[in-house]
Amino acid sequence: MDEIVEAVNKAIDNYLYEKEPYELYQAVRHLPEAGGKRLRPVIACLSCEASGGELEDAIPFGVALELVHTFTLVHDDIMDKDEMRRGMPSVHKKFGENEAILAGDTLFAKAFEVISLMKDAEIVKRLTRNVSIMAKEICEGQHMDMSFENVEYVDEKIWLEMIEKKTAKMFEHAAMGGAIIARADENKIEAMKNYGRNLGMAFQIWDDCLDVIGKDIGKPVGSDIREGKKTLMYLYAYVNSDRKWLSKYGKEEYVEEIIDIFRETGAIDYAKNKAKEFSEYAKKELEIFEDSEAKRKLIELADFAVEREK
Amino acid sequence: MDEIVEAVNKAIDNYLYEKEPYELYQAVRHLPEAGGKRLRPVIACLSCEASGGELEDAIPFGVALELVHTFTLVHDDIMDKDEMRRGMPSVHKKFGENEAILAGDTLFAKAFEVISLMKDAEIVKRLTRNVSIMAKEICEGQHMDMSFENVEYVDEKIWLEMIEKKTAKMFEHAAMGGAIIARADENKIEAMKNYGRNLGMAFQIWDDCLDVIGKDIGKPVGSDIREGKKTLMYLYAYVNSDRKWLSKYGKEEYVEEIIDIFRETGAIDYAKNKAKEFSEYAKKELEIFEDSEAKRKLIELADFAVEREK
Repeated sequence: MDEIVEAVNKAIDNYLYEKEPYELYQAVRHLPEAGGKRLRPVIACLSCEASGGELEDAIPFGVALELVHTFTLVHDDIMDKDEMRRGMPSVHKKFGENEAILAGDTLFAKAFEVISLMKDAEIVKRLTRNVSIMAKEICEGQHMDMSFENVEYVDEKIWLEMIEKKTAKMFEHAAMGGAIIARADENKIEAMKNYGRNLGMAFQIWDDCLDVIGKDIGKPVGSDIREGKKTLMYLYAYVNSDRKWLSKYGKEEYVEEIIDIFRETGAIDYAKNKAKEFSEYAKKELEIFEDSEAKRKLIELADFAVEREK
Repeated sequence: MDEIVEAVNKAIDNYLYEKEPYELYQAVRHLPEAGGKRLRPVIACLSCEASGGELEDAIPFGVALELVHTFTLVHDDIMDKDEMRRGMPSVHKKFGENEAILAGDTLFAKAFEVISLMKDAEIVKRLTRNVSIMAKEICEGQHMDMSFENVEYVDEKIWLEMIEKKTAKMFEHAAMGGAIIARADENKIEAMKNYGRNLGMAFQIWDDCLDVIGKDIGKPVGSDIREGKKTLMYLYAYVNSDRKWLSKYGKEEYVEEIIDIFRETGAIDYAKNKAKEFSEYAKKELEIFEDSEAKRKLIELADFAVEREK
C-alpha cells in the first residue's frame, strides 16, 4: 500500500500546481502536504483493481476525495476551534480564519477540477454527481454533530446517521468510485458502496474507542470525554447506568473516572463490538469478487479498522 | 427578461429540495430565496439563445452559477464582516458563523450537483471543469481584494486582475457556458467568453462609480470611501493628485471631501470611461452573431451596465 500512498502524494503535488497568490496557496497546501494515511485514495485504488480495473486509473479520483477530505478538515477546525491537526497548527491557527475559509473553498474547487480532467465524460458526470451529493451530506453530518453539543442525549440511530454522513459516506464513495472507474457491473458497484460505508462506520466507531483505550494515539487519552463529545460509549452509558456521572462529563479532572464508568457499564465493549459488526458487514460485501491481491488488502483493511491500537 | 428571472427562481426552488437538517437548509436558502437580479443566469440563457440554442436549456447551468455566486457572497460576508446583504441580515449575522460556513459549502456542493444533472456528459465534463477553475479564481480574487486592505497603493493592472477574477470571470463563464450548451462553434464560444468578461469588468467598475454618483443604490453614498476600499477612482486620484487627502480616506467625516477630490482630479470620469470602454469591447464581440432578440438583449445589457443610476 506504500506504493499507492507514494503515487497519491506525487499526484497531489502535481494537481496543486498553482503558485499565486502565494499566501493563499501556502494555506491551501498546508494540510495536503502534511501527509496522512491517504486512506480514501488507497480504498479507491484497491477497489478499482479488485473490480477488474487498473489501480492507477483511480488515483485522480482518490486525489479528488483527499482534497474534499482536507477541505472539510480545514473548515471543521474553524468551526470546532481546533488549533492542532496532524501535529501542526491548523490552517486557521497558522494563516488566520479568513485565509482558512478561502483555502478550504479552493481545495473544494480543486477536487472538482481534478475529477473533470478524467478522460471518460460519462464517468466524470457520474463522479461529479456522487461527490457533490457526498459533500452536501458531509455538511449535513457536521451540522448534526455540532447540534449534538447542545443536547444531553441523542438516539443511537440518529447518532449513527451523523457518523454515516460525516465520515462513512466518503469511504462509501471511495470504494464505489473505484468500481465505477473499473467499469464494473452495477451489482459490484453496489457491493463496493456497501463495503465502503460499513468500513467507514467501523473506522469511526473504533476511532472513538481508541480515544479511551488507545496507545500513542497522538493526543491525550480521553480527549472526547474532556470535550464533552457525544460518542457511542457516552450514549450507551447514558441509557445503561444511573447517570450520576453526567455532571462530571466534559471535565478534565473526571476523565479517568468516566473511563472506568464506560468500562463498568460495558459501554466500551458495546462500541467495540458495534465496530466489529460493521467490519464484518464490510467484508461480507466482498464475497462476490474474485480472489485477488487487491481484494485481500481490502479485507485486511476491514480487519485493521477494528484491531489497530492507534 | 422577467420571464427568465421567473423561470430561474422556480428552478432554484426545485433544486434546493432538501428539508433536513432544518436549520442548515434555512441558512442555505436565506440568500437564494431573497431574490436578486439573477444576472448570471440571464446572461447564460440569452447567450445560449443568441448562439442558436434553446434558452431553457441553459437554466440549470444558470442556477448552478447563481448558487456559486451566492456561496461566495455568504463566505465573503463572513470575511468582510458585512452584516447586511440584499436588505436583510447576512447569513452569518442571522445563523451564526459556523452555520454560514456550512451553508456556503452546501451551496457550492449543490452547484456541481445541478451541473451533473444535465443530460449531455461531454457538456457536464466541460462545465464542471470551467466552473471549478472559475471558483478557484474567485477565491484568488477575494484573497487579492483582502490583501489590498493592507497596502496604500496597488498597480491598476493588478487591480484589474483582481476584479477580473473576483467578478468578471463569473460573467465570462455565464456567457461562455450558454454558448457551450448551444453547441456553438469554438469561435463563437470564445466570442461569448470575451463578451462576458468585458461585461463583468464594465459592471464592476460602474458599480464602484455608483457608490459615489449613484441614486437610491440601497446603501449610503460613499460606503467604499468610508470603508477605505481601493477602487479605481482611489488609484487614479492617488497617482494624479498631491495625496494630501490620503489620511482622510476611510473616515466618515471626510466622505464628501473625498468625493469632491475624486471629481476634481478626474478620477470619476476616468473610471466611468474605463467602464464604458469595457462595455464597448463586450458589444464588439457580439458582431459575429446573427441578429436576434437575444443578441439585442445582450447588447442592451452592455449598455445598461454603464448607464444605470443604481
